[in-house]
Amino acid sequence: MSGRYIEQLIKIIAKFPSLGSRSARRIVLYLLKKKETLIPQLITALEEVQNNIKICDICGNYDTENPCSICSSASRDSGLLCVVQDISDLWALERGGLYKGRYHILGGVLSAIEGVTPEDLNIDKLLNRIEQEEISEIILALPATVDGQITMHYISSLLKDKDIKVSTLAQGIPVGGELDYMDDGTIKLALDMRKRL
Amino acid sequence: MSGRYIEQLIKIIAKFPSLGSRSARRIVLYLLKKKETLIPQLITALEEVQNNIKICDICGNYDTENPCSICSSASRDSGLLCVVQDISDLWALERGGLYKGRYHILGGVLSAIEGVTPEDLNIDKLLNRIEQEEISEIILALPATVDGQITMHYISSLLKDKDIKVSTLAQGIPVGGELDYMDDGTIKLALDMRKRL
Repeated sequence: MSGRYIEQLIKIIAKFPSLGSRSARRIVLYLLKKKETLIPQLITALEEVQNNIKICDICGNYDTENPCSICSSASRDSGLLCVVQDISDLWALERGGLYKGRYHILGGVLSAIEGVTPEDLNIDKLLNRIEQEEISEIILALPATVDGQITMHYISSLLKDKDIKVSTLAQGIPVGGELDYMDDGTIKLALDMRKRL
Repeated sequence: MSGRYIEQLIKIIAKFPSLGSRSARRIVLYLLKKKETLIPQLITALEEVQNNIKICDICGNYDTENPCSICSSASRDSGLLCVVQDISDLWALERGGLYKGRYHILGGVLSAIEGVTPEDLNIDKLLNRIEQEEISEIILALPATVDGQITMHYISSLLKDKDIKVSTLAQGIPVGGELDYMDDGTIKLALDMRKRL
């Protein structure tokens, strides 16, 4: 192939999540075709992220400020805390713009297979926050997987002696979801959890 | 979402070929998690491509040198020229390492729908090369699409008075291909072009 610089860039981009060497090559060609405009623009954007983005010491969110704009916002309900697995989940909840409390990012879920123990997650930090902040309700918005459910049970067991409401997201058929496309687990759960009209 | 710098980077990456905003968000999170190592590495790779990669005046290839290492190589057969649509096709042929001639990159194929005329392609440059270089055979390795075939016919009509062998890639069932997975057009063509054993 032409030039080790191109190969080096392809190698880095091929390791990005959901990409491989074929899509990396397509992306590098796309960048090369707009070399004079797009590459400097991308470098600037990367440098700005590199220089300005910090991790919030309180919740683990990425922001230009520390504490982040969500933790320091006066208009957010400081009694309501939503525990999520990762920052992408925080972004998903923020896109809706409906949640008005604060967040706590665990940084993963417990996993016997991948060897993730409570010490690997921000659970200590969560307990510290509960001691220091006046939190009345914790929403455990963890993934609806076995590991996610185990993590939820683990955290709720740690909180059972405290005077805090612990809730989790409702499960069932998503809005617009067709029964035909749902897996058996979801259908069983939606039947078991059926609501009276 | 958290911080306009992150959003700006997501916006740029979401425009990459085969990506969208969801995969761009995943990639930016991946970069943020390895902020101290991966982002500087990516910036350096981009800067090196930006500063060192040139377009070869002869064939249109990207390389650190101009003319490119293929055009200036003494071990390449200078009488054999392979005409390809894009640099990705050159890369594909080079990966095999079997072709030992030179290349000419058209930069596209003729298209009535997309309004691509002969003037938009490097056809003039190809005719100039034929005048100046001693080329004995041209392989038209253009895509097996209608537009690709039209472009092949157009170029071969321009070359018909010249003393140059013009060939194209063989078409048929790919190696390892199962009939069951082939489209009707490929099966018809493979039947029509059947070879005597």
